[in-house]
Amino acid sequence: MVSKSQIKLITSLQQKKYRDTNGLFIAEGQKLITELMEEGLNLHSVFGTSSFMDASEKFSMVTERELQKLSALKKANGLLAVFEIPKPRATTSEGLILALDAIRDPGNLGTIIRLCDWFGVEQLVCSKDTADCYNPKVVQASMGSIARVHIQYTDLSEYIKNMQLPVYGGVLNGNNIYSEETPENAIVIMGNEANGISDELIALLSHKITIPQFGKVQKTESLNVATATAILLSEFRR
Amino acid sequence: MVSKSQIKLITSLQQKKYRDTNGLFIAEGQKLITELMEEGLNLHSVFGTSSFMDASEKFSMVTERELQKLSALKKANGLLAVFEIPKPRATTSEGLILALDAIRDPGNLGTIIRLCDWFGVEQLVCSKDTADCYNPKVVQASMGSIARVHIQYTDLSEYIKNMQLPVYGGVLNGNNIYSEETPENAIVIMGNEANGISDELIALLSHKITIPQFGKVQKTESLNVATATAILLSEFRR
Repeated sequence: MVSKSQIKLITSLQQKKYRDTNGLFIAEGQKLITELMEEGLNLHSVFGTSSFMDASEKFSMVTERELQKLSALKKANGLLAVFEIPKPRATTSEGLILALDAIRDPGNLGTIIRLCDWFGVEQLVCSKDTADCYNPKVVQASMGSIARVHIQYTDLSEYIKNMQLPVYGGVLNGNNIYSEETPENAIVIMGNEANGISDELIALLSHKITIPQFGKVQKTESLNVATATAILLSEFRR
Repeated sequence: MVSKSQIKLITSLQQKKYRDTNGLFIAEGQKLITELMEEGLNLHSVFGTSSFMDASEKFSMVTERELQKLSALKKANGLLAVFEIPKPRATTSEGLILALDAIRDPGNLGTIIRLCDWFGVEQLVCSKDTADCYNPKVVQASMGSIARVHIQYTDLSEYIKNMQLPVYGGVLNGNNIYSEETPENAIVIMGNEANGISDELIALLSHKITIPQFGKVQKTESLNVATATAILLSEFRR
């Protein structure tokens, strides 16, 4: 059984302002929820239609119809949990740091968080106009990686100026990434889906890098930002 | 003005069986439609709410409401065109060939078609249970690349047996791709989102390859198939 006030709270968490006010975000599906719990995130509440239900007050058995009312998915996935947004961790000034400039698509951000996890990029620094990482679509696309990658939102220009690291940026007419040196300690910036990296940040790049096209026809304008990030992180790690 | 029979025909093209019967598929948005026309695809008809309208019989001016009725998008994008599905081209037995085993997500297939275009992979061979490349979601995600990449649907097992090429497959426990040799002429197989490459095709691989994980925590189960394809094609081309 789920109350009206619970429905109100949980559906409100689909919006950033209510996530910020309440310090809570939602995750759906047994696999993702289990993974977030194993990573030590604090569970606020769980709603499920079937088994997995415990004695704890945090668990509520609901009907499929009730769960659909709470869900941000087109088709609710059996289990929905509310987690506490983790406290910010200390930032690092070493290693490979990925910076995102105004990435707007939640699916792209989720895929990029998953890539950071895969390639051991512990720090993901986002401009303030990047999509919110606790948006339900981002949480679902991140597949649990959101609990392992340290994500912060900040003024990227100031952040980069304060760091004593080489700054690489993915652009359309830069140096061939396959012949660039890729140091262990560096910042890599990826830009907005439509407009790329903003002029303000372009001015701070020490290295402009590009994934070259192959084949006869040179037509496709650019790679999707998530696939381009995959290729660039792979080049820094190989 | 758009007739009831036009609405019926065009919305039916969202389903594979009607695309196959009619030899037609739809594309939406001025940029994509222009690109497909430039690539020489035969236009069947165009529906638009605003300008770009011509004297030709192929063009129809419609209201926004009428266009929404025709569209496969949540929000129609000003212009919708119906193109003839191109005739199959002659297959090649050289170069880098990408084979897809039961890729089901239209977004993944669209991204992979775009990657083939970027990396000059002219031949994309799909198992018969891979998503249909003329599905509206695939067409939209391919960003026009669908007109440049040669895509065929066939029995992959027979296809591979007939080709005299080394066969690489993306798997979870293969050799590190960063230390493998990557020949110019090869087939690379990518498998289903949930189950990977089928046992029948695994038996035909000459090289099992894997993108290694980095960092302390080894948890994320696998990369999204489109991002994994991005990294593997990049490795074959670099």
